[in-house]
Amino acid sequence: MTHFNIILFDDFEILDAFGPAEVIGKLPKSYLPDYYSLNGGIITSTQNLQVHTKPFSEMDTSGILLIPGGMGTRKLVHDMEFINSVRAISEQALYVLTVCTGSALLAKTGLLDGKNATSNKMAFDWVCSNSANVNWIGNARWVNDRKFYTSSGVSSGIDMTLGFICDIHGYDSAQNTARFIEYIWNENKENDPFCNC
Amino acid sequence: MTHFNIILFDDFEILDAFGPAEVIGKLPKSYLPDYYSLNGGIITSTQNLQVHTKPFSEMDTSGILLIPGGMGTRKLVHDMEFINSVRAISEQALYVLTVCTGSALLAKTGLLDGKNATSNKMAFDWVCSNSANVNWIGNARWVNDRKFYTSSGVSSGIDMTLGFICDIHGYDSAQNTARFIEYIWNENKENDPFCNC
Repeated sequence: MTHFNIILFDDFEILDAFGPAEVIGKLPKSYLPDYYSLNGGIITSTQNLQVHTKPFSEMDTSGILLIPGGMGTRKLVHDMEFINSVRAISEQALYVLTVCTGSALLAKTGLLDGKNATSNKMAFDWVCSNSANVNWIGNARWVNDRKFYTSSGVSSGIDMTLGFICDIHGYDSAQNTARFIEYIWNENKENDPFCNC
Repeated sequence: MTHFNIILFDDFEILDAFGPAEVIGKLPKSYLPDYYSLNGGIITSTQNLQVHTKPFSEMDTSGILLIPGGMGTRKLVHDMEFINSVRAISEQALYVLTVCTGSALLAKTGLLDGKNATSNKMAFDWVCSNSANVNWIGNARWVNDRKFYTSSGVSSGIDMTLGFICDIHGYDSAQNTARFIEYIWNENKENDPFCNC
């Protein structure tokens, strides 16, 4: 059983976090979704949802890490205590997946420097301006570079997580998972209908 | 500001509830997502997420009601205190939206008797067997009959909520909302690729 550690912060985007949680939770013998914030306690999403989290210090960091986006990232990219903590757990993680402006948080750690990555297309200029050493890909539903998976806006996290399952467990496993949640998987990561390019 | 009241119960399916919350939350001047359970307190989803809820008794029942599905519905269809409470708040709601086996809970109240409705295709036989007086539609991504919107499995709730926005606020509003969350809307409610028929 591999831990699927989702990190949350105030003003996170609800579907960024829980779309991937839904997908990965459909392989229950393989992954255990779990929810963390820097100091633990109640975290509130942009959609007014209050969720319980455990502190980073209790995380089994050998698992997979998911970093959602949301308006909360705008402040957090300047919070070096948070960014340094994300860097530490990202270095230890087996894989790191980001959704939307979650890419900006991971990029700020420096771990994406020299690597390919993507993010939300509406916030793309802001994301790029925050981390100039990343090779930002504009036309991508999601991008994989070594242990890092980064996806575009909000709902693209569902497609990316299915892509991750495909890479790790095979195409049939991804398609069966999509069928189980009656999701029409946009399986071509290079087809991004929301790209401005 | 219309309340968008999402009711939760132990073992609810995370995307059933929070896909629609994401969509409706993108019209923030129109709708306020809020989260309730029968008696309030902490509720745990199938995906191991603990969320804080208010009791039904504190709900502004003049709003819109969303009922998600999940394994928890299997017990709840036999819990008449719960079903009677759902009936009371559904009668007062402006609209009632259900996702997946949330349809089974609403159907059990009797409010769908003689109306068209749909549900998850993998659990379809179970849903139909629980409420024989509903006109269950097998081939539908979602169904609208008077103030009731019912959708198929898990991710179909996102499509239905966009369809609801389309009906209430117009097609452009639905498409703009989909674009904002970078979601490829399956906008034809009669096209159900997961139907067994």
